[in-house]
Amino acid sequence: MQTDRNKILVESIKRLLRRGATSHLIKIVNKTHAADLSMVFRSLSLSHQRKLFGIIEDTEQKGILFTELDEDTFLDLVEGVELDHFVEILEQMPTDDVADLIGRLPEKMSDTILEKMKVEGSEEVEDLLRYKDDTAGGIMLPDFIALAEDTTAKEAIESLQKEHLDVEMPFYLYVVDRYDKLVGVISLRQLVVVPHETTLRDFMTTDVFSVQTDMDQEEVAKIVARYDILAVPVVDGANKLVGIVTVDDVIDIFRREATEDMLKMAGAGEEFVETKSVLKSTRIRLPWLFASCLGGIIAFLIIGHFEGSLSKLAYLAAFIPVIMGMGGNIGTQSSTIVVRGLATGRLQLRDIWSVVSKELAIGLILGLVYGIIIGMAAQFRYSREALAVSVGIALICSMSIAALVGSLVPMAFARVNIDPAVASGPFVTTAIDIISVFFYFQIATTLLGL
Amino acid sequence: MQTDRNKILVESIKRLLRRGATSHLIKIVNKTHAADLSMVFRSLSLSHQRKLFGIIEDTEQKGILFTELDEDTFLDLVEGVELDHFVEILEQMPTDDVADLIGRLPEKMSDTILEKMKVEGSEEVEDLLRYKDDTAGGIMLPDFIALAEDTTAKEAIESLQKEHLDVEMPFYLYVVDRYDKLVGVISLRQLVVVPHETTLRDFMTTDVFSVQTDMDQEEVAKIVARYDILAVPVVDGANKLVGIVTVDDVIDIFRREATEDMLKMAGAGEEFVETKSVLKSTRIRLPWLFASCLGGIIAFLIIGHFEGSLSKLAYLAAFIPVIMGMGGNIGTQSSTIVVRGLATGRLQLRDIWSVVSKELAIGLILGLVYGIIIGMAAQFRYSREALAVSVGIALICSMSIAALVGSLVPMAFARVNIDPAVASGPFVTTAIDIISVFFYFQIATTLLGL
Repeated sequence: MQTDRNKILVESIKRLLRRGATSHLIKIVNKTHAADLSMVFRSLSLSHQRKLFGIIEDTEQKGILFTELDEDTFLDLVEGVELDHFVEILEQMPTDDVADLIGRLPEKMSDTILEKMKVEGSEEVEDLLRYKDDTAGGIMLPDFIALAEDTTAKEAIESLQKEHLDVEMPFYLYVVDRYDKLVGVISLRQLVVVPHETTLRDFMTTDVFSVQTDMDQEEVAKIVARYDILAVPVVDGANKLVGIVTVDDVIDIFRREATEDMLKMAGAGEEFVETKSVLKSTRIRLPWLFASCLGGIIAFLIIGHFEGSLSKLAYLAAFIPVIMGMGGNIGTQSSTIVVRGLATGRLQLRDIWSVVSKELAIGLILGLVYGIIIGMAAQFRYSREALAVSVGIALICSMSIAALVGSLVPMAFARVNIDPAVASGPFVTTAIDIISVFFYFQIATTLLGL
Repeated sequence: MQTDRNKILVESIKRLLRRGATSHLIKIVNKTHAADLSMVFRSLSLSHQRKLFGIIEDTEQKGILFTELDEDTFLDLVEGVELDHFVEILEQMPTDDVADLIGRLPEKMSDTILEKMKVEGSEEVEDLLRYKDDTAGGIMLPDFIALAEDTTAKEAIESLQKEHLDVEMPFYLYVVDRYDKLVGVISLRQLVVVPHETTLRDFMTTDVFSVQTDMDQEEVAKIVARYDILAVPVVDGANKLVGIVTVDDVIDIFRREATEDMLKMAGAGEEFVETKSVLKSTRIRLPWLFASCLGGIIAFLIIGHFEGSLSKLAYLAAFIPVIMGMGGNIGTQSSTIVVRGLATGRLQLRDIWSVVSKELAIGLILGLVYGIIIGMAAQFRYSREALAVSVGIALICSMSIAALVGSLVPMAFARVNIDPAVASGPFVTTAIDIISVFFYFQIATTLLGL
């Protein structure tokens, strides 16, 4: 339903753009949520994107649109926007999003913009730009509601009526001492139901989860998810409240991290390439295939080594694909289970040996099952027992080694703080290919007496 | 830091359990969040789990713990809990979680429990059990705040003070007409800042995003994420408000769906297996490997067909691994990009031809690059031009076909409503293996005149 609606929207806007039916377009655009407009933008050519962007009247809508667009589309679009108007749009946006967008621009342009922005806003943005992108400090919102302990509920409500009108997450109010240190939290809900004269101190929750500015964004996201909260306060080294990370950013983090892990495991870069050009995509994907290219060259050198046996018994070659394929697939199973298990926190690094030995056991059992099946198929086709036994044993070896390597490598990498997703994918598969082929020929030439 | 804290907690609790230091344990357990306790449970043996569970005093904490545990651990644990006490715990829990837990129990047990539960609660649970698990109806909370249009802000606040005390998401108040149809929404924030006598009609937002009970949970999650809202109202066919889906459930949906996609693509089942026994895990993973087993048998039949050529030129076999490996890896790149692109909504089904032709172009370019590299390596090793050219051409074919199949299959499957993640993984890799090997031998025997 949702998809149909979007499809209709895209088609109508495309048609109207072709016809140049500006007044119609204005009507549609004003009624459409910026998140939906960003879907439309992805399907348009650059000239149409610029035209449509010019039609949007609401600067706030333009701002939301900026945050929703892919980096490339955003940069293309911005080139056509006047600097003063761009600054105007930025001034309407939440500070964390502004910092994010400015981080994408060439340095010279971002400096000019920071100078042009109203002093207050640009200071906040510069503060945010100081933290690393993927830490709590880099993703936090510096707009939050902080009140003193001796504020009464009535005063707190009055302050909401006068100030904090544009705070994004007005449902938690943080309580700070006179040094701005975080001491408690109350929910808007509690504030509404307590008697007017109660001071915040008397009903605040003092057991507040908070995170440090330098905590990795994935850790922050896990905390928000684990405790089912809508925002988590961010404090600096001195426990001074400096910002909050809200649940909508947490959703984005989880989705982006899952995407990154999947792409890394497939050796397809880290970031989404589907909006990039053919040449750019090719450049990103090319180096990842180099591992399997090198691995392939090693494999043909190994097989070349057994050329003598092969010319005596040509059908030895016939089992290379099944031994590589089965090893590769079980290795992918193991590494995916480990990489995702570590990412979701369902597997712990300290359990490394129990995880790896379990995978090894599974690899042995599955190797036995499929070793017998393929061995029997080999016997049926070539009626030569020593060959059938060699193929069977080679499969058991290949599948247990694959399960072992597939689980051990990502765990070991995570232990020394290398991203396990990067370590898995192409590297593991290639290593398993080489090991499997080598074992197979070694076993077969020995058993067949070649 | 978070991880260290958990590690210390697990170790202390294990030690105290071994020592039987109950009074110490009670102190620790009462101070620990149920979400953290669930982490501890995962590392304990069943007998220790039961012992620790017996020590928890707070029934609410027990309830949260139930929702956090894996299905197997939960079922094991529940066997040791008295039925009346179990019902007592359930009565304290949010209705959607109760429905979820009861859905996991054997039917006979769940019937007994529904009978024992207080009438009101059990009716709500039975209502929820009517909807499919993975739809908006199946995941919604039936507790929400609904008020009439002519309620004043003051009356609304008073109703919050008297009723709705245990509503999980008290930050949105929904406005309904006298037939319970959804007509608007106000945020608690707005309610607090408007003058007391204003009626809800005068400041409510009438442009409410709502979803139908039968909408797929993934679609619901995408809507909440796209519009950055904390909850989305669920309506039945007659636009009557029946529940809400909250943002914490949306996070769980995204994380679970990403996990499922990754496991399916790796051919490792759909659900997490890391807490299951070796035999159970083996049983889940075994059938997925059957595709590559069958593929392997087909591959050896094909190669057997070229036995004559192989015995004349044994080193033909040496290039099987590199051709399979390169094809497999680029195919995995393509299918991962497509599967994840569809899941995040960054790729649209209607763009099928532009996506597939782009992948094909990338496959051709990368095939050309690596075809030349491997062809040169072959020439260097065996000094036979026809062989080098055959290997090069086979790589170009294999890599472009792999990119084509890897992107086309998941898109085509999604179009006929089969999960693209299931369709990708082992099936695609195996198909590519067979096609690549066949092309290679066909090209090589032709060019080498064998």
